[in-house]
Amino acid sequence: MNNYSPRLSRLIEALRKLPGVGPKSAQRMAFHLLDRDRAAAEKLAAALGDALGGIGRCKTCRMFCEDEACRYCTPARRAGGQLCVVETPADLMALEAGTSYRGRYFVLMGRLSPLDGIGPAELGLSVLQEVLLEGDVQEMIVATNPTVEGEATAYYLAEMAKAAKVKVSRIAHGVPMGGELEYVDGGTLTHALSGRTPA
Amino acid sequence: MNNYSPRLSRLIEALRKLPGVGPKSAQRMAFHLLDRDRAAAEKLAAALGDALGGIGRCKTCRMFCEDEACRYCTPARRAGGQLCVVETPADLMALEAGTSYRGRYFVLMGRLSPLDGIGPAELGLSVLQEVLLEGDVQEMIVATNPTVEGEATAYYLAEMAKAAKVKVSRIAHGVPMGGELEYVDGGTLTHALSGRTPA
Repeated sequence: MNNYSPRLSRLIEALRKLPGVGPKSAQRMAFHLLDRDRAAAEKLAAALGDALGGIGRCKTCRMFCEDEACRYCTPARRAGGQLCVVETPADLMALEAGTSYRGRYFVLMGRLSPLDGIGPAELGLSVLQEVLLEGDVQEMIVATNPTVEGEATAYYLAEMAKAAKVKVSRIAHGVPMGGELEYVDGGTLTHALSGRTPA
Repeated sequence: MNNYSPRLSRLIEALRKLPGVGPKSAQRMAFHLLDRDRAAAEKLAAALGDALGGIGRCKTCRMFCEDEACRYCTPARRAGGQLCVVETPADLMALEAGTSYRGRYFVLMGRLSPLDGIGPAELGLSVLQEVLLEGDVQEMIVATNPTVEGEATAYYLAEMAKAAKVKVSRIAHGVPMGGELEYVDGGTLTHALSGRTPA
Protein backbone atom coordinates (compact mmCIF):
# COMPACT_ATOMS: atom_id res chain seq x y z
CA MET A 1 0.00 0.00 0.00
CA ASN A 2 1.04 3.55 -0.61
CA ASN A 3 2.28 5.37 2.39
CA TYR A 4 1.46 9.04 1.91
CA SER A 5 2.19 11.77 4.37
CA PRO A 6 -0.91 12.79 6.37
CA ARG A 7 -1.91 15.94 4.45
CA LEU A 8 -1.29 14.31 1.07
CA SER A 9 -3.27 11.29 2.19
CA ARG A 10 -6.21 13.49 3.24
CA LEU A 11 -6.14 15.32 -0.09
CA ILE A 12 -6.10 12.06 -2.06
CA GLU A 13 -8.91 10.63 0.04
CA ALA A 14 -10.97 13.77 -0.51
CA LEU A 15 -10.40 13.63 -4.28
CA ARG A 16 -11.45 9.97 -4.34
CA LYS A 17 -14.91 11.02 -3.19
CA LEU A 18 -15.49 12.65 -6.57
CA PRO A 19 -17.58 10.45 -8.87
CA GLY A 20 -15.50 8.39 -11.27
CA VAL A 21 -12.22 9.00 -9.46
CA GLY A 22 -10.26 5.97 -8.19
CA PRO A 23 -7.02 5.83 -6.20
CA LYS A 24 -4.74 6.23 -9.22
CA SER A 25 -6.64 9.21 -10.63
CA ALA A 26 -6.83 10.81 -7.19
CA GLN A 27 -3.06 10.52 -6.78
CA ARG A 28 -2.56 11.93 -10.26
CA MET A 29 -4.87 14.85 -9.50
CA ALA A 30 -3.20 15.57 -6.16
CA PHE A 31 0.30 15.48 -7.65
CA HIS A 32 -0.81 17.62 -10.58
CA LEU A 33 -2.31 20.25 -8.30
CA LEU A 34 0.65 20.31 -5.90
CA ASP A 35 3.30 20.10 -8.55
CA ARG A 36 2.11 22.00 -11.56
CA ASP A 37 -0.98 23.99 -10.82
CA ARG A 38 -1.21 25.36 -7.31
CA ALA A 39 -3.27 28.26 -8.64
CA ALA A 40 -5.92 25.78 -9.85
CA ALA A 41 -5.96 24.16 -6.42
CA GLU A 42 -6.52 27.50 -4.77
CA LYS A 43 -9.29 28.33 -7.22
CA LEU A 44 -10.91 24.95 -6.64
CA ALA A 45 -10.83 25.36 -2.85
CA ALA A 46 -12.30 28.85 -3.16
CA ALA A 47 -14.97 27.75 -5.67
CA LEU A 48 -15.98 24.84 -3.43
CA GLY A 49 -16.34 27.07 -0.39
CA ASP A 50 -18.20 29.66 -2.40
CA ALA A 51 -20.55 27.08 -3.94
CA LEU A 52 -21.29 25.41 -0.61
CA GLY A 53 -22.08 28.72 0.99
CA GLY A 54 -23.91 30.32 -1.90
CA ILE A 55 -25.74 27.62 -3.84
CA GLY A 56 -29.03 26.43 -2.41
CA ARG A 57 -32.20 25.00 -3.86
CA CYS A 58 -35.06 26.86 -5.45
CA LYS A 59 -38.11 26.24 -3.29
CA THR A 60 -40.40 25.93 -6.31
CA CYS A 61 -38.46 23.96 -8.92
CA ARG A 62 -35.71 22.53 -6.67
CA MET A 63 -32.95 23.29 -9.16
CA PHE A 64 -29.67 24.63 -7.75
CA CYS A 65 -30.15 28.33 -7.21
CA GLU A 66 -27.87 31.02 -5.88
CA ASP A 67 -29.84 34.21 -6.31
CA GLU A 68 -32.97 35.53 -4.69
CA ALA A 69 -34.95 34.66 -7.79
CA CYS A 70 -34.49 31.30 -9.50
CA ARG A 71 -33.53 31.69 -13.16
CA TYR A 72 -35.84 28.83 -14.15
CA CYS A 73 -38.90 30.20 -12.34
CA THR A 74 -39.08 33.65 -13.95
CA PRO A 75 -42.47 35.23 -14.72
CA ALA A 76 -41.65 34.89 -18.44
CA ARG A 77 -41.25 31.11 -18.10
CA ARG A 78 -44.30 30.96 -15.86
CA ALA A 79 -46.38 32.72 -18.51
CA GLY A 80 -45.81 29.86 -20.97
CA GLY A 81 -47.90 27.56 -18.78
CA GLN A 82 -45.59 24.57 -19.33
CA LEU A 83 -43.88 22.61 -16.59
CA CYS A 84 -41.25 19.99 -17.40
CA VAL A 85 -40.55 17.34 -14.77
CA VAL A 86 -37.02 15.88 -14.80
CA GLU A 87 -35.15 13.50 -12.51
CA THR A 88 -31.91 15.40 -11.94
CA PRO A 89 -30.31 18.83 -12.35
CA ALA A 90 -28.14 17.32 -15.09
CA ASP A 91 -31.30 16.38 -17.04
CA LEU A 92 -32.51 19.97 -16.71
CA MET A 93 -29.18 21.30 -18.00
CA ALA A 94 -29.32 18.85 -20.94
CA LEU A 95 -32.79 20.05 -21.94
CA GLU A 96 -31.80 23.72 -21.57
CA ALA A 97 -28.64 23.22 -23.59
CA GLY A 98 -30.07 20.97 -26.29
CA THR A 99 -33.63 22.16 -26.87
CA SER A 100 -35.45 25.42 -27.25
CA TYR A 101 -37.83 24.63 -24.36
CA ARG A 102 -37.95 27.67 -22.11
CA GLY A 103 -40.77 26.83 -19.74
CA ARG A 104 -40.63 26.00 -16.06
CA TYR A 105 -39.09 22.87 -14.55
CA PHE A 106 -39.57 20.63 -11.57
CA VAL A 107 -36.56 18.56 -10.50
CA LEU A 108 -37.54 15.33 -8.74
CA MET A 109 -34.02 14.71 -7.37
CA GLY A 110 -34.52 11.00 -8.01
CA ARG A 111 -37.25 8.66 -9.13
CA LEU A 112 -39.85 6.50 -7.43
CA SER A 113 -38.11 3.34 -6.33
CA PRO A 114 -40.08 1.42 -3.71
CA LEU A 115 -37.34 -1.20 -3.35
CA ASP A 116 -34.94 1.54 -2.20
CA GLY A 117 -37.61 3.06 0.01
CA ILE A 118 -38.13 6.06 -2.24
CA GLY A 119 -41.84 6.85 -2.45
CA PRO A 120 -43.81 10.00 -3.28
CA ALA A 121 -43.05 11.47 0.16
CA GLU A 122 -39.28 10.99 -0.22
CA LEU A 123 -39.38 12.75 -3.59
CA GLY A 124 -41.40 15.57 -2.02
CA LEU A 125 -44.13 15.29 -4.62
CA SER A 126 -46.40 17.40 -2.42
CA VAL A 127 -44.38 20.42 -3.60
CA LEU A 128 -45.19 19.49 -7.19
CA GLN A 129 -48.85 19.02 -6.28
CA GLU A 130 -48.98 22.54 -4.86
CA VAL A 131 -47.45 23.92 -8.05
CA LEU A 132 -50.06 22.08 -10.12
CA LEU A 133 -52.93 23.28 -7.94
CA GLU A 134 -51.81 26.91 -8.23
CA GLY A 135 -53.43 26.89 -11.67
CA ASP A 136 -50.54 28.46 -13.63
CA VAL A 137 -49.60 25.19 -15.30
CA GLN A 138 -51.51 24.25 -18.43
CA GLU A 139 -49.31 21.36 -19.50
CA MET A 140 -46.99 19.11 -17.55
CA ILE A 141 -44.28 17.46 -19.66
CA VAL A 142 -42.90 14.34 -18.01
CA ALA A 143 -39.22 13.93 -18.98
CA THR A 144 -38.15 11.16 -16.62
CA ASN A 145 -35.71 8.62 -18.02
CA PRO A 146 -37.08 5.70 -20.04
CA THR A 147 -36.06 3.15 -17.41
CA VAL A 148 -38.43 0.89 -15.49
CA GLU A 149 -38.38 3.23 -12.51
CA GLY A 150 -38.56 6.33 -14.67
CA GLU A 151 -41.64 4.94 -16.46
CA ALA A 152 -43.30 4.07 -13.14
CA THR A 153 -42.58 7.59 -11.93
CA ALA A 154 -44.03 8.99 -15.16
CA TYR A 155 -47.21 6.98 -14.65
CA TYR A 156 -47.58 8.23 -11.07
CA LEU A 157 -46.96 11.83 -12.17
CA ALA A 158 -49.54 11.53 -14.95
CA GLU A 159 -52.15 10.37 -12.45
CA MET A 160 -51.27 13.32 -10.22
CA ALA A 161 -51.64 15.77 -13.09
CA LYS A 162 -54.97 14.28 -14.15
CA ALA A 163 -56.27 14.59 -10.58
CA ALA A 164 -55.26 18.27 -10.68
CA LYS A 165 -56.96 18.64 -14.10
CA VAL A 166 -53.67 19.50 -15.80
CA LYS A 167 -52.89 18.26 -19.31
CA VAL A 168 -49.96 15.85 -19.18
CA SER A 169 -47.57 14.65 -21.88
CA ARG A 170 -44.55 12.38 -22.01
CA ILE A 171 -41.45 13.06 -24.12
CA ALA A 172 -41.23 10.77 -27.15
CA HIS A 173 -39.15 7.62 -27.08
CA GLY A 174 -37.88 6.09 -30.26
CA VAL A 175 -34.93 5.75 -32.57
CA PRO A 176 -32.34 8.46 -31.78
CA MET A 177 -31.43 10.91 -34.54
CA GLY A 178 -28.58 9.51 -36.60
CA GLY A 179 -29.20 6.06 -35.14
CA GLU A 180 -29.48 3.05 -37.43
CA LEU A 181 -32.44 0.73 -37.04
CA GLU A 182 -30.15 -2.26 -37.42
CA TYR A 183 -28.27 -1.39 -34.24
CA VAL A 184 -31.14 -0.11 -32.10
CA ASP A 185 -32.36 -2.43 -29.34
CA GLY A 186 -35.75 -4.11 -29.49
CA GLY A 187 -37.29 -2.13 -26.65
CA THR A 188 -36.52 1.16 -28.37
CA LEU A 189 -37.84 -0.17 -31.70
CA THR A 190 -41.07 -1.28 -30.02
CA HIS A 191 -41.47 2.20 -28.56
CA ALA A 192 -40.68 3.79 -31.91
CA LEU A 193 -43.25 1.64 -33.67
CA SER A 194 -46.05 2.08 -31.16
CA GLY A 195 -45.38 5.80 -30.93
CA ARG A 196 -45.48 6.34 -34.70
CA THR A 197 -46.93 9.63 -35.90
CA PRO A 198 -48.73 10.43 -39.19
CA ALA A 199 -46.18 11.55 -41.78
CA MET B 1 -23.86 26.12 -24.58
CA ASN B 2 -24.72 25.49 -21.00
CA ASN B 3 -25.71 28.51 -19.05
CA TYR B 4 -24.75 27.94 -15.44
CA SER B 5 -25.22 30.40 -12.64
CA PRO B 6 -21.96 32.21 -11.74
CA ARG B 7 -20.93 30.19 -8.66
CA LEU B 8 -21.79 26.89 -10.30
CA SER B 9 -19.92 27.94 -13.40
CA ARG B 10 -16.83 28.82 -11.36
CA LEU B 11 -16.97 25.47 -9.56
CA ILE B 12 -17.27 23.54 -12.83
CA GLU B 13 -14.43 25.54 -14.38
CA ALA B 14 -12.24 24.82 -11.35
CA LEU B 15 -13.00 21.09 -11.51
CA ARG B 16 -12.14 21.04 -15.22
CA LYS B 17 -8.58 22.00 -14.34
CA LEU B 18 -8.10 18.57 -12.78
CA PRO B 19 -6.24 16.20 -15.10
CA GLY B 20 -8.56 13.94 -17.09
CA VAL B 21 -11.71 15.90 -16.29
CA GLY B 22 -13.75 17.32 -19.19
CA PRO B 23 -16.87 19.47 -19.15
CA LYS B 24 -19.29 16.55 -18.67
CA SER B 25 -17.31 15.01 -15.81
CA ALA B 26 -16.88 18.41 -14.18
CA GLN B 27 -20.63 19.01 -14.28
CA ARG B 28 -21.25 15.54 -12.87
CA MET B 29 -18.75 16.15 -10.08
CA ALA B 30 -20.21 19.55 -9.22
CA PHE B 31 -23.78 18.24 -9.16
CA HIS B 32 -22.72 15.22 -7.12
CA LEU B 33 -20.97 17.39 -4.55
CA LEU B 34 -23.80 19.92 -4.30
CA ASP B 35 -26.59 17.42 -4.41
CA ARG B 36 -25.44 14.33 -2.61
CA ASP B 37 -22.22 14.87 -0.78
CA ARG B 38 -21.75 18.35 0.61
CA ALA B 39 -19.62 16.88 3.40
CA ALA B 40 -17.17 15.58 0.79
CA ALA B 41 -17.04 19.02 -0.81
CA GLU B 42 -16.23 20.60 2.54
CA LYS B 43 -13.55 18.01 3.19
CA LEU B 44 -12.06 18.54 -0.26
CA ALA B 45 -11.94 22.32 0.20
CA ALA B 46 -10.30 21.90 3.61
CA ALA B 47 -7.84 19.27 2.34
CA LEU B 48 -6.85 21.50 -0.58
CA GLY B 49 -6.23 24.48 1.67
CA ASP B 50 -4.35 22.33 4.12
CA ALA B 51 -2.21 20.74 1.42
CA LEU B 52 -1.39 24.04 -0.25
CA GLY B 53 -0.36 25.55 3.05
CA GLY B 54 1.41 22.54 4.50
CA ILE B 55 3.01 20.56 1.68
CA GLY B 56 6.30 21.84 0.35
CA ARG B 57 9.31 20.27 -1.27
CA CYS B 58 12.20 18.52 0.43
CA LYS B 59 15.33 20.53 -0.34
CA THR B 60 17.43 17.41 -0.81
CA CYS B 61 15.26 14.93 -2.70
CA ARG B 62 12.55 17.35 -3.95
CA MET B 63 9.71 14.96 -3.07
CA PHE B 64 6.58 16.52 -1.53
CA CYS B 65 7.30 16.98 2.13
CA GLU B 66 5.21 18.36 4.94
CA ASP B 67 7.34 17.80 8.01
CA GLU B 68 10.62 19.24 9.21
CA ALA B 69 12.41 16.06 8.17
CA CYS B 70 11.66 14.41 4.82
CA ARG B 71 10.56 10.81 5.22
CA TYR B 72 12.64 9.76 2.23
CA CYS B 73 15.86 11.37 3.45
CA THR B 74 16.17 9.71 6.87
CA PRO B 75 19.58 8.73 8.25
CA ALA B 76 18.56 5.06 7.89
CA ARG B 77 17.97 5.49 4.16
CA ARG B 78 21.12 7.57 3.88
CA ALA B 79 23.14 4.79 5.46
CA GLY B 80 22.31 2.40 2.61
CA GLY B 81 24.36 4.52 0.23
CA GLN B 82 21.89 4.15 -2.64
CA LEU B 83 20.21 7.01 -4.47
CA CYS B 84 17.40 6.38 -6.95
CA VAL B 85 16.70 9.10 -9.52
CA VAL B 86 13.09 9.26 -10.78
CA GLU B 87 11.22 11.68 -13.01
CA THR B 88 8.13 12.39 -10.93
CA PRO B 89 6.69 11.99 -7.41
CA ALA B 90 4.30 9.38 -8.87
CA ASP B 91 7.29 7.30 -10.00
CA LEU B 92 8.72 7.50 -6.48
CA MET B 93 5.41 6.34 -4.99
CA ALA B 94 5.24 3.46 -7.48
CA LEU B 95 8.74 2.27 -6.49
CA GLU B 96 7.96 2.62 -2.78
CA ALA B 97 4.67 0.76 -3.12
CA GLY B 98 5.84 -1.97 -5.49
CA THR B 99 9.40 -2.73 -4.50
CA SER B 100 11.39 -3.26 -1.36
CA TYR B 101 13.87 -0.48 -2.24
CA ARG B 102 14.26 1.71 0.82
CA GLY B 103 17.17 3.94 -0.14
CA ARG B 104 17.18 7.63 -0.89
CA TYR B 105 15.56 9.28 -3.90
CA PHE B 106 16.06 12.27 -6.13
CA VAL B 107 13.01 13.54 -8.01
CA LEU B 108 13.90 15.30 -11.26
CA MET B 109 10.44 16.86 -11.68
CA GLY B 110 10.67 16.25 -15.39
CA ARG B 111 13.22 15.05 -17.90
CA LEU B 112 15.79 16.63 -20.18
CA SER B 113 13.94 17.90 -23.21
CA PRO B 114 15.96 20.44 -25.21
CA LEU B 115 13.09 20.99 -27.67
CA ASP B 116 10.91 22.21 -24.80
CA GLY B 117 13.78 24.26 -23.40
CA ILE B 118 14.34 21.94 -20.44
CA GLY B 119 18.06 21.52 -19.87
CA PRO B 120 20.15 20.52 -16.85
CA ALA B 121 19.67 23.99 -15.29
CA GLU B 122 15.86 23.81 -15.57
CA LEU B 123 15.86 20.40 -13.86
CA GLY B 124 18.10 21.79 -11.14
CA LEU B 125 20.68 19.07 -11.61
CA SER B 126 23.19 21.12 -9.58
CA VAL B 127 21.26 20.00 -6.49
CA LEU B 128 21.84 16.38 -7.51
CA GLN B 129 25.50 17.12 -8.18
CA GLU B 130 25.90 18.48 -4.64
CA VAL B 131 24.30 15.34 -3.24
CA LEU B 132 26.68 13.18 -5.25
CA LEU B 133 29.72 15.19 -4.16
CA GLU B 134 28.77 14.88 -0.48
CA GLY B 135 30.23 11.37 -0.64
CA ASP B 136 27.32 9.52 1.05
CA VAL B 137 26.12 7.97 -2.18
CA GLN B 138 27.81 4.73 -3.27
CA GLU B 139 25.41 3.84 -6.05
CA MET B 140 23.06 5.96 -8.14
CA ILE B 141 20.17 4.01 -9.67
CA VAL B 142 18.69 5.78 -12.68
CA ALA B 143 14.97 5.01 -12.91
CA THR B 144 13.86 7.47 -15.58
CA ASN B 145 11.22 6.25 -17.99
CA PRO B 146 12.32 4.20 -21.01
CA THR B 147 11.30 6.94 -23.46
CA VAL B 148 13.65 8.78 -25.81
CA GLU B 149 13.87 11.72 -23.44
CA GLY B 150 14.12 9.49 -20.38
CA GLU B 151 17.00 7.57 -21.97
CA ALA B 152 18.78 10.81 -22.88
CA THR B 153 18.33 11.99 -19.31
CA ALA B 154 19.69 8.68 -18.03
CA TYR B 155 22.78 9.06 -20.21
CA TYR B 156 23.39 12.58 -18.93
CA LEU B 157 22.92 11.46 -15.32
CA ALA B 158 25.32 8.56 -15.81
CA GLU B 159 28.00 10.95 -17.08
CA MET B 160 27.40 13.16 -14.05
CA ALA B 161 27.75 10.24 -11.66
CA LYS B 162 30.93 9.03 -13.35
CA ALA B 163 32.42 12.53 -13.06
CA ALA B 164 31.63 12.42 -9.33
CA LYS B 165 33.17 8.91 -9.12
CA VAL B 166 29.85 7.35 -8.08
CA LYS B 167 28.81 3.91 -9.34
CA VAL B 168 25.77 4.22 -11.58
CA SER B 169 23.17 1.67 -12.69
CA ARG B 170 20.02 1.74 -14.79
CA ILE B 171 16.87 -0.23 -13.98
CA ALA B 172 16.36 -3.21 -16.30
CA HIS B 173 14.10 -2.96 -19.33
CA GLY B 174 12.57 -6.03 -20.85
CA VAL B 175 9.48 -8.17 -21.07
CA PRO B 176 7.13 -7.28 -18.19
CA MET B 177 6.17 -10.04 -15.74
CA GLY B 178 3.14 -11.92 -17.03
CA GLY B 179 3.63 -10.44 -20.49
CA GLU B 180 3.64 -12.67 -23.54
CA LEU B 181 6.50 -12.41 -26.04
CA GLU B 182 4.01 -12.57 -28.88
CA TYR B 183 2.37 -9.31 -27.84
CA VAL B 184 5.42 -7.37 -26.68
CA ASP B 185 6.67 -4.61 -29.02
CA GLY B 186 9.94 -4.90 -30.89
CA GLY B 187 11.75 -2.20 -28.92
CA THR B 188 11.07 -3.97 -25.64
CA LEU B 189 12.12 -7.32 -27.10
CA THR B 190 15.37 -5.80 -28.36
CA HIS B 191 16.05 -4.43 -24.87
CA ALA B 192 15.17 -7.78 -23.31
CA LEU B 193 17.51 -9.63 -25.65
CA SER B 194 20.47 -7.29 -25.32
CA GLY B 195 20.00 -7.10 -21.55
CA ARG B 196 19.94 -10.89 -21.10
CA THR B 197 21.49 -12.24 -17.88
CA PRO B 198 23.15 -15.61 -17.25
CA ALA B 199 20.52 -18.11 -16.07
